[in-house]
Amino acid sequence: MRPKLAFAMSPGKTRFVFDEAALSRLGELCEVLSDEPLHDFTDAAARAVLHDTEILVTGWGCPFISREVVAAAPRLKLIAHAAGTVKYHLDPVVFEAGIAVTNAVAANAVPVAEYTLAMIILANKQALQFRDLYREDRTRGTSYALMDTPIGNYRRTVGIVGASHIGRRVVELLRPFDFTVLLYDPHVRPGDEICRHAELVDLDELIARSDVVSLHAPSLPSTRHMIGRRELGLMRNGATLINTARGALVDEAALVAELETGRVSAVIDVTDPEIPAPDSPLFTLPNVVLTPHIAGAVGSERSRLGNLMVEEIERFAAGRPLHHQVQPSLLLQLA
Amino acid sequence: MRPKLAFAMSPGKTRFVFDEAALSRLGELCEVLSDEPLHDFTDAAARAVLHDTEILVTGWGCPFISREVVAAAPRLKLIAHAAGTVKYHLDPVVFEAGIAVTNAVAANAVPVAEYTLAMIILANKQALQFRDLYREDRTRGTSYALMDTPIGNYRRTVGIVGASHIGRRVVELLRPFDFTVLLYDPHVRPGDEICRHAELVDLDELIARSDVVSLHAPSLPSTRHMIGRRELGLMRNGATLINTARGALVDEAALVAELETGRVSAVIDVTDPEIPAPDSPLFTLPNVVLTPHIAGAVGSERSRLGNLMVEEIERFAAGRPLHHQVQPSLLLQLA
Repeated sequence: MRPKLAFAMSPGKTRFVFDEAALSRLGELCEVLSDEPLHDFTDAAARAVLHDTEILVTGWGCPFISREVVAAAPRLKLIAHAAGTVKYHLDPVVFEAGIAVTNAVAANAVPVAEYTLAMIILANKQALQFRDLYREDRTRGTSYALMDTPIGNYRRTVGIVGASHIGRRVVELLRPFDFTVLLYDPHVRPGDEICRHAELVDLDELIARSDVVSLHAPSLPSTRHMIGRRELGLMRNGATLINTARGALVDEAALVAELETGRVSAVIDVTDPEIPAPDSPLFTLPNVVLTPHIAGAVGSERSRLGNLMVEEIERFAAGRPLHHQVQPSLLLQLA
Repeated sequence: MRPKLAFAMSPGKTRFVFDEAALSRLGELCEVLSDEPLHDFTDAAARAVLHDTEILVTGWGCPFISREVVAAAPRLKLIAHAAGTVKYHLDPVVFEAGIAVTNAVAANAVPVAEYTLAMIILANKQALQFRDLYREDRTRGTSYALMDTPIGNYRRTVGIVGASHIGRRVVELLRPFDFTVLLYDPHVRPGDEICRHAELVDLDELIARSDVVSLHAPSLPSTRHMIGRRELGLMRNGATLINTARGALVDEAALVAELETGRVSAVIDVTDPEIPAPDSPLFTLPNVVLTPHIAGAVGSERSRLGNLMVEEIERFAAGRPLHHQVQPSLLLQLA
């Protein structure tokens, strides 16, 4: 008997996350209860589907999985969340009910880490500043002057804040480069595998020594504004702050003030609030690369999330252990 | 007896290529004949230095090593060229005179390959287009629309034109990514090591299948305008051409015409002529990232070139084989 599966996520997103091959594979493995993803668990038809669902595939736009939803899904054994973090999408009662939870954090980490790597390379070379200078001075006079400053990707220092999936992947991708890699993470112990490729230091030392500081910490009350005026003041002249994690990690007013001096640069993919006020200097400062939360999965990268969940569901259906099961005790540490 | 060494390169560049540690090491290994680099071989003082020189360290801004210069340097045993290619800097009579030649092509390849990697990642994500869209539409409406198009770095195809030092390094750096890597190089045979990580195809197939086409071929009469109107027409909609090699590889008028349609994008670090006319559309087209020849060594990356030549001189002084000796038969194939 194939397990009964339902989707609960934004219908507009589902087709990007699960491509035809993935949907076809799920159709072989499971009995798909509804062609349309559920988007409102209070709806009567959705309740009927939920009552029989054994595997619920969630993702962007999934309604919250509350205590009531768990009660309405007595046969539910697996929630497969085809997105970056499940933290805001379910009540911890799910775990008490013995429902296994897996998610695509590992797949979502890949594009963020790749994007971070690209931005580290370009930031150290000041490549986008070169582009702007060249447009302004087509004789290359100012460009040649910049070439003679201590920029570049040779024997420079990159500081990674947070040994999350993403932070660890960035450290891995940095291995073929001529960098000193520093790591700050209060949960990492010196024997951790990552310490073979990064020097564990405290946050102040990391900031003071790094040419690029890249944030990969979770957004928690304890990490709110972990990069504030004091920390920004520790950054080296000409250094770059990269934030692809969460806007709340940075005191944005302090960051704008520091950026307005021109002393440091920033690559900012996330802000707090999620979209800055239209008159925010982050949109226009020449030393800022502001992007609309694109470091994570966009376009074809979304189907990596779906494919990872298909693999998990294959394992689950075959009675094998999940590879990406969420441990309730770690849920609060997640990004 | 320590060998006698002289520098012949632009004095303004020498200090970036040979940092204090490198100069100090050369001072231990060799007797440095002149504090100032030679910059005019016809000068009498320079001739006197040249007469005793056994190791000549050349680089950016080195005067041409002609038949006359070789005749004026009877003790010369090694030319160590601390830059990317020696091809335009010496008369082949150097090889007939039994002078060993080494160069820093391998060190210069590193930053170009790294820069190319960064631009491949950003091009596939259309990251810089996202930045521009976000500045124009701060509600993210246009950004969200772009996110749903087939962009991204998952299961996409990257075409590498030329298995040069740089091309090979790019293929190596692409290994941790979810790409199909294609390679075109008429000199590569199927048994070549690189074929383990790239699929050898002809140029037309490479262009037609790739989401990013990156040029790493030498500039030769036979490669002039190898990317012309016909080849540009083969590129996929939304694909990106990256040129960090030489401007002459591309028919620039044809490229501008194709770019003006908006059908494809380009990342252009080199042009022909070296600096485009001030009114060139390459400076202003929104789908072009034009930079002033910065993919190669800039800033701190220059000292990687010097350090590689110090290692070569250490080997030479100890009577060990050079690792980067230039073979005269290959000189004409070099970039």
